[in-house]
Amino acid sequence: MHSTDTDAGSWTTAARIYNSTVAAWAISAAWELGALDELHDRGFLDTAEFAARHDLDPAATLGMFRGLTSVGIVHRDGTRITPAEPFAEIHRTRSLFHWLVRGNGELFQQMPSVLRNENRFGSFYRRDAVAISRACKEISAFCYDPWFWPAVDGLGFVPQVTADLGCGSGERLMQILRRHPGTRAVGIDIAGESLKVAEADAVEAGLATRISFVEADMLTMEPRPEFAEVELLTCFMAGHDFWPREQCVATLTRLRRLFPRVRRFLLGDATRSVGVADQDTRVFTLGFEVAHDLMDTFMPTVGDWESVFAEGGWDLRRKHTIDMVANEVIFELEPR
Amino acid sequence: MHSTDTDAGSWTTAARIYNSTVAAWAISAAWELGALDELHDRGFLDTAEFAARHDLDPAATLGMFRGLTSVGIVHRDGTRITPAEPFAEIHRTRSLFHWLVRGNGELFQQMPSVLRNENRFGSFYRRDAVAISRACKEISAFCYDPWFWPAVDGLGFVPQVTADLGCGSGERLMQILRRHPGTRAVGIDIAGESLKVAEADAVEAGLATRISFVEADMLTMEPRPEFAEVELLTCFMAGHDFWPREQCVATLTRLRRLFPRVRRFLLGDATRSVGVADQDTRVFTLGFEVAHDLMDTFMPTVGDWESVFAEGGWDLRRKHTIDMVANEVIFELEPR
Ligand SMILES: C[S@@+](CC[C@H](N)C(=O)[O-])C[C@H]1O[C@@H](n2cnc3c(N)ncnc32)[C@H](O)[C@@H]1O
Ligand SMILES: C[S@@+](CC[C@H](N)C(=O)[O-])C[C@H]1O[C@@H](n2cnc3c(N)ncnc32)[C@H](O)[C@@H]1O
Repeated sequence: MHSTDTDAGSWTTAARIYNSTVAAWAISAAWELGALDELHDRGFLDTAEFAARHDLDPAATLGMFRGLTSVGIVHRDGTRITPAEPFAEIHRTRSLFHWLVRGNGELFQQMPSVLRNENRFGSFYRRDAVAISRACKEISAFCYDPWFWPAVDGLGFVPQVTADLGCGSGERLMQILRRHPGTRAVGIDIAGESLKVAEADAVEAGLATRISFVEADMLTMEPRPEFAEVELLTCFMAGHDFWPREQCVATLTRLRRLFPRVRRFLLGDATRSVGVADQDTRVFTLGFEVAHDLMDTFMPTVGDWESVFAEGGWDLRRKHTIDMVANEVIFELEPR
Repeated sequence: MHSTDTDAGSWTTAARIYNSTVAAWAISAAWELGALDELHDRGFLDTAEFAARHDLDPAATLGMFRGLTSVGIVHRDGTRITPAEPFAEIHRTRSLFHWLVRGNGELFQQMPSVLRNENRFGSFYRRDAVAISRACKEISAFCYDPWFWPAVDGLGFVPQVTADLGCGSGERLMQILRRHPGTRAVGIDIAGESLKVAEADAVEAGLATRISFVEADMLTMEPRPEFAEVELLTCFMAGHDFWPREQCVATLTRLRRLFPRVRRFLLGDATRSVGVADQDTRVFTLGFEVAHDLMDTFMPTVGDWESVFAEGGWDLRRKHTIDMVANEVIFELEPR
């Protein structure tokens, strides 16, 4: 039976939402297992052959591809899978799905208990830090990199030491080290598990002698000798954790003291949308905003950010408005 | 800002799938927190007032409703929520969403590791048995009850003792006890946690003296004195666990010996679809079939079932084809 293009109009709303949910898990899994790359690179795939080659169960593997077929991402003819029209978009945004269903699946699943005031203290939710790092590594590449590298190249100096706040996988720092041979880097993150993966990656990349990782809370950490030499500070997809306002101003002020020789601070993050109706939100925005509401994490708007820099001791040199999936922006800051 | 109806055509595929996934979690949570019933009964709801009344965080609660708005299930005007056109369907099928995202969320999340042959032994996946029982209690009511009660009333005798295989919440047995005062019942299930909830419900319903629960595997359990008196056997949404074929024939044969005085066996279950394209599946079917493929549970077609009854020692008296969401059917069996 050959699949025709999906006509979303012929489904009931319930079926559409239901199959989409199965599909979201399937997208994330198919990425992790290499199936999306293979479809992208070769243009087809046989589920039985794919399962055999990767030592996977053939029926369960077919089930994963049925999830993709049900919402029209791929065509299926028996065990033969080919990309359908929306495949390119899904392939490009797969990391956003991974972030949602693997990184934050437990958080969303626990929504009823997470909503209750009586539960909202201590660590009242669980997320998968390693899955989030993995997703963010790719989100970073497709959302921020096209704006990040021109900003780095336009600094006007080669930073001898770079520190990344909330470094996650450490990928950004390793790329900076490759770009600028002879320089060094410090990665700071609160998630020890992610740092373990980052350290292993650094060893594999032959960069272990030039990079160090510090497990610390960027909001409360103490000065360290290696911080004193830092000339470039970066913070991507983690700056919203500076907030709410008072804490953000205090953190910006502290960062100046923790990194006394810093010359530039590249701060990139998604920001809360303003004036977009829920049903008009693009991929990512809604999941991203609701997740942060569930976790009780303040998510600032661009305007919120612009209102704190001077007070925190920084001048805004430039603003790069990216706005790819969740109102991303990169602020280029300089000590006042 | 007043919401207009959602035009799915104006979204990208990625946004549609993404927001639908957030919505599925929100449907399940909104059911559990009583928000769907309130919207259904009163026709509107204020998220801030709802949060205050239930001691919920207002921002996180608004986030939950934004999930529903994003796919057009409800309209949102600030904090005022009203049902949109698809609301009725979602309200009716909410238990199917609960089954998927709460009952089976972990299973789907673990898809990459579940697919690997090297992991497929022992208990290689996790599900939430209590959430599944809760969902099945309502699925049972809207899918099977309209066919189940006529079948019970048409038995031609009042069963003095009824046994339910895979009884879950025990709801079906308690309803039978209410229908037939003075009769007794035995609930059998492998999930001790679900039986604890069932026992508490029975106490609350004042039925504790007329019902007993047995924690056992219906495929391997031994005879018990209370089984000897059973006249009616029921098994709903659990019969697929009899399979594959050889084990199913053996189980049907064993049930005759375990319940020597049984006069009728009402066996109701979803069955595997035949000849439906993945993209044409209704709500539930796809998630249900893929979940069972992930767990390596054989899911028989109606034809498969019809091929085993005689061999297992039962005559098929009648077949009720329900076909509500996943090709459900009730077989009315009689010892040969
Ligand atoms: C969304 S990830 C982004 C990772 C990385 N910056 C990238 O661009 O791929 C956010 C990271 O910030 C870290 N983080 C969150 N709060 C933090 C804190 N208070 N101190 C240090 N790290 C934190 C998390 O552990 C996580 O690795
Ligand atoms: C989908 S639920 C249906 C519950 C209930 N019959 C109803 O109609 O709502 C399936 C039930 O079968 C139980 N079950 C599965 N395999 C079993 C087995 N081998 N022996 C006993 N119970 C089993 C599960 O624990 C679960 O409670």
